[in-house]
Amino acid sequence: MKKIILILLITLFQSSIFSQDMLQEKYNLMPWPQQISENNAPFKIDRKLTISIAGEDLKKRVANASVQFLRRLANRTGIFINTGFPVKGKKASIEISFDTISNLSIESDEAYSLDINKNNVFIKAKTDVGALRALETLLQLVNFNQNGYYFEGVAIKDSPRFVWRGLMIDAARHFQPIEVLKRNLNAMASVKLNVFHWHLTDDQGFRVESKVYPKLQEEASDGLFYTQEQIKDLVKYASNLGIRVIPEFDVPGHSSAILTAYPELSSKEDYNYSIERFSGIFNPTLNPSKEETYTFLENLFTEIAPLFPDEYFHIGGDENEGKHWDENTEIQEFKKKNNLKNNHELQTYFNIKLEKILKKLGKKLMGWDEILTPSLPTSAVIHSWRGKREGLQQSTLIEAAKRGYQGVLSAGYYIDRMLSIEHHYSVDPIGEAILTKEERKRILGAETTMWSELVTPHTIDSRIWPRTAAIAERFWSAKEVNDVNNMRKRLDVINFQLEELGITHIKNRAVILRNISNHQENNALKTLSNLCEPIKIYSRNEAGTEYKTFSPFTLFADACVADAKDAVIFNKLVAQENFDEVKIYLKHWSKNHDELQAIINNPNVKPLRELSRNLSITSSILLNILTKKEISASQINKLNASIALLKKPYLDVELAVIGSLQNLITLSQEKYSIKK
Amino acid sequence: MKKIILILLITLFQSSIFSQDMLQEKYNLMPWPQQISENNAPFKIDRKLTISIAGEDLKKRVANASVQFLRRLANRTGIFINTGFPVKGKKASIEISFDTISNLSIESDEAYSLDINKNNVFIKAKTDVGALRALETLLQLVNFNQNGYYFEGVAIKDSPRFVWRGLMIDAARHFQPIEVLKRNLNAMASVKLNVFHWHLTDDQGFRVESKVYPKLQEEASDGLFYTQEQIKDLVKYASNLGIRVIPEFDVPGHSSAILTAYPELSSKEDYNYSIERFSGIFNPTLNPSKEETYTFLENLFTEIAPLFPDEYFHIGGDENEGKHWDENTEIQEFKKKNNLKNNHELQTYFNIKLEKILKKLGKKLMGWDEILTPSLPTSAVIHSWRGKREGLQQSTLIEAAKRGYQGVLSAGYYIDRMLSIEHHYSVDPIGEAILTKEERKRILGAETTMWSELVTPHTIDSRIWPRTAAIAERFWSAKEVNDVNNMRKRLDVINFQLEELGITHIKNRAVILRNISNHQENNALKTLSNLCEPIKIYSRNEAGTEYKTFSPFTLFADACVADAKDAVIFNKLVAQENFDEVKIYLKHWSKNHDELQAIINNPNVKPLRELSRNLSITSSILLNILTKKEISASQINKLNASIALLKKPYLDVELAVIGSLQNLITLSQEKYSIKK
Repeated sequence: MKKIILILLITLFQSSIFSQDMLQEKYNLMPWPQQISENNAPFKIDRKLTISIAGEDLKKRVANASVQFLRRLANRTGIFINTGFPVKGKKASIEISFDTISNLSIESDEAYSLDINKNNVFIKAKTDVGALRALETLLQLVNFNQNGYYFEGVAIKDSPRFVWRGLMIDAARHFQPIEVLKRNLNAMASVKLNVFHWHLTDDQGFRVESKVYPKLQEEASDGLFYTQEQIKDLVKYASNLGIRVIPEFDVPGHSSAILTAYPELSSKEDYNYSIERFSGIFNPTLNPSKEETYTFLENLFTEIAPLFPDEYFHIGGDENEGKHWDENTEIQEFKKKNNLKNNHELQTYFNIKLEKILKKLGKKLMGWDEILTPSLPTSAVIHSWRGKREGLQQSTLIEAAKRGYQGVLSAGYYIDRMLSIEHHYSVDPIGEAILTKEERKRILGAETTMWSELVTPHTIDSRIWPRTAAIAERFWSAKEVNDVNNMRKRLDVINFQLEELGITHIKNRAVILRNISNHQENNALKTLSNLCEPIKIYSRNEAGTEYKTFSPFTLFADACVADAKDAVIFNKLVAQENFDEVKIYLKHWSKNHDELQAIINNPNVKPLRELSRNLSITSSILLNILTKKEISASQINKLNASIALLKKPYLDVELAVIGSLQNLITLSQEKYSIKK
Repeated sequence: MKKIILILLITLFQSSIFSQDMLQEKYNLMPWPQQISENNAPFKIDRKLTISIAGEDLKKRVANASVQFLRRLANRTGIFINTGFPVKGKKASIEISFDTISNLSIESDEAYSLDINKNNVFIKAKTDVGALRALETLLQLVNFNQNGYYFEGVAIKDSPRFVWRGLMIDAARHFQPIEVLKRNLNAMASVKLNVFHWHLTDDQGFRVESKVYPKLQEEASDGLFYTQEQIKDLVKYASNLGIRVIPEFDVPGHSSAILTAYPELSSKEDYNYSIERFSGIFNPTLNPSKEETYTFLENLFTEIAPLFPDEYFHIGGDENEGKHWDENTEIQEFKKKNNLKNNHELQTYFNIKLEKILKKLGKKLMGWDEILTPSLPTSAVIHSWRGKREGLQQSTLIEAAKRGYQGVLSAGYYIDRMLSIEHHYSVDPIGEAILTKEERKRILGAETTMWSELVTPHTIDSRIWPRTAAIAERFWSAKEVNDVNNMRKRLDVINFQLEELGITHIKNRAVILRNISNHQENNALKTLSNLCEPIKIYSRNEAGTEYKTFSPFTLFADACVADAKDAVIFNKLVAQENFDEVKIYLKHWSKNHDELQAIINNPNVKPLRELSRNLSITSSILLNILTKKEISASQINKLNASIALLKKPYLDVELAVIGSLQNLITLSQEKYSIKK
């Protein structure tokens, strides 16, 4: 009897897994919800659609979101919805209800339920922000057939796995205007991210208007900074979307800009401080032995803190190598006097001073994981970016949680490294770590980081998206939602929907290609851009001295993205040994070099000549082999020679199908007779 | 002897005309300069390029423009220019000098000279703004060959024909965020426009923050308005580009929004004032008989005027049909008491009151040409939009100039009517009118008007550009620069350069097509969009009741533009009877309907079925006829039937090659034997 029950349970479990997989094939939701079931009663969308809101919408978040929902729905479907604003009273096609207003903190509830049936859509949530999350899910359930558009008939109960799900944008290396941030906030909300971490200062610029220390924006920003009005407006915009804003003022290192404006706070006198034009780790550092430094920071933070209502305040604290500290005899004496054994202890001294300043302002200090030193108070929050470090058994995140610190993970989510989404998606914030309930609670969540050394307002979206949508799923959904193929299928759909939020990741690539080709339409260049990826892990800007902040980012590499579209498909086809489909691609590429001839002498196309030529040669030979099902020694030689040339980087890109082309050679040698 | 001199003079004159034509074929300048000569000494652009500024750049206009110049040059060419900012001292590759700072008025000098030779580029101007105009010309002289990029070797002396060269953007019907305006200001500066007329209020919204009357933005803007900070920032941004900003507050008509906030100022009591969602002419009108109305306007203008440093202040004054005035007995009594014979005289009474209020604020009153009544003081400025009116021998512009008023022309430049650039380009602001020197001086210039009933921030650029670039040439260049074919050739190049300024006219069309096709790539839809044009002269929104302000503008018509690209080429080929080329198009179109099949059931493609099908049928038959050089009666019948169906509008577009297709039928009948 027990055995029968066990079998029954296993069967049920398997069928639930099976049906979950089926649903993931059918619906393009991202992040995938905690619970979903089908009712086969889709809701037809027409011009009579209305929305009502029950619940005191004190912050107007749900009203705003409803208006945006109606606009996006009308724009996506082309339906002339009669009523452009939420209706009074309870009765409507879409009835939203919620109990309270979220205070946007790590305690806030974001759970919701969504029920779609033939006649109505019901959204219920504890908080207004939960209702927002539901509206985004509903927009992902729009589908069409030849009779028109409808919402899929499903019932969903959903809530996030982690309370902190962030995107960091570096607005210091390349300034990012407000509209760039707003469209990215829209996109964040659409995949249920809830923390915008705003990296506001660095060696390359100080991006905040200070009325107390106006030289910061006047002398250290090239005129590219946010006014206090703009900051207030952005924080409000984010709040409307249920997104918290965490500012980062990076100290004591990464401070060339601050010291350009106020060199008297520096660790090294007689040094020519100026806004940094290159990338990397630089020596200018605030002087932790001077009281003026703390006065400056206290005044500045006292002025700035009220602009950011969130409790968390990021002080950076990373990559201070201490060279200027070592060279300054006064600092050395200060260390001795205060019994600080090394620069780590000196920086901890600095951090503890800051922690007190921030505490007075009602803020919690947060910093990159360099701040995790033995004497740091556990009220500080650790932002883990380096993962495992020497001497640690585990990542700094887990280490911090065990030692009593709250923590947020970014190691594994550095999207500026231009790695495949497959890599990031596979990183779990907790992984196999075994934690007590208290330790688990300290792991707040994670953030993707968009450092901006190599992106401009024009290109940043194609580096953030669509990969961040899949990472957002890692932060929201159950750990077990991890099928890469299915994720890619859903991501393809979400990818296009991002355009309706203003994300420029697709359209701006076309602009760059038009510029490179000097506006001569050329599909061959587009084909190459769908096969090449920017070179990875910071190899593009070796030692930070190739690109200056004002160098052009309108190059071929800037039109290319991680997970190059055709390369992803081709690599899969080769892995499946689907030679019929493979041959279609090879045929297309074999002719591509000829098509590129029309623009081959254009200055920014010319350096692609060898890449293009050898791709066509390789494709042509492989096509021949796969078609005739025989291979010769001379063909192998030619292929190896071409592949060798294809492996070189051209214009900071790499061909993302090289492995597959090599596999095809190996497979051909295994399968086909060798012709003499 | 006299005869010989005459012949010599004629020959010289003709050769100068001839060489001018040659130069216009060679260089893609727009607006075309007053004088240009060649020196065959191009300047090679490389990373060592520098810019210096001689002249006290008190407003930093030239420094800002130089930085932008360097960024655009780097981005367009991909060259890593070493020095990203103007250098100290006089010596540089590009040496800019100027004498004074422009005060941005109708008296301001914008002339410049530009000399490019092998080793240097020299820019000389009287004012800083003249130098800005020269830098834009220089960017239009970038060219490339297989050795790289260079500036063309030419010398130019240039100055504008009209002092007032404007673009009006209606931010009331559809709100246009600051970034939309900034990118359009960039584009305006690139074609030397110098007036941004900002239509800020209308029935559909009041778009300015008032601290004195906050209900204006709180209750009459749907939350879509400019803060005073944003306005100051925009005016400064425009000033940096040498562009004046003229605000328009439209009164006493077009005031539904004002009266939604302050119904006590209305002409009709017990009327339910609300933000208008449709388009057209509406009855809500300020009450000119109440002193409160003038108090309100004086307070409002006193608050707002300092935000706009320009002397000119636009009060609209158009399209007041006076219905609510007629219905109000108090107003009727007021008219009698003040001896005002009709509503025109009442509105003039209102205008004279406003003129005095504005005078106190140091402003000149400007209004649409309805304000041109017999008793209007000549200090007012007439904005001619209706052209010739009944009872007038000439346009209101010429009439006004003769009667002593300054005037600006917009009749003929209504780009929202979606007419071909050929039409607008052919309208000369003065035409054949014979004017005294004084009268001529009163004609300040002209403005294109972008009314926004049918455009959103997403689509507005493709309605403004590229046509406005050619119209800008009409306002700047000599009247004799009027070859349409040559203009089109140059415009094609300028069109693409607008992308580097952030103009979205090309890329957003692709976004709309992706949305319509539900992200299934389809070239057939793109082909149709390059052949169709939105229906014209306000037929798209008959009576203003089809589209609401929140209706979708992501439809097929929104992806189409005036001067549909392939239609322009095809129509020319047919006119030239170039049947070889014509057949290539016909062949392509004959297969287009098959290619569209993949997405024909998508809800927003389906209504194009008949258009697509009949285009393919027509093309296929015509191709057959042109190939076989014979035509049958049955073919003629089929063609006529198809053409009849093609003439219907589908989805608010019209096929822009119908005339040519019909011509092909006629030509075939003339040329080829009729088969039985």
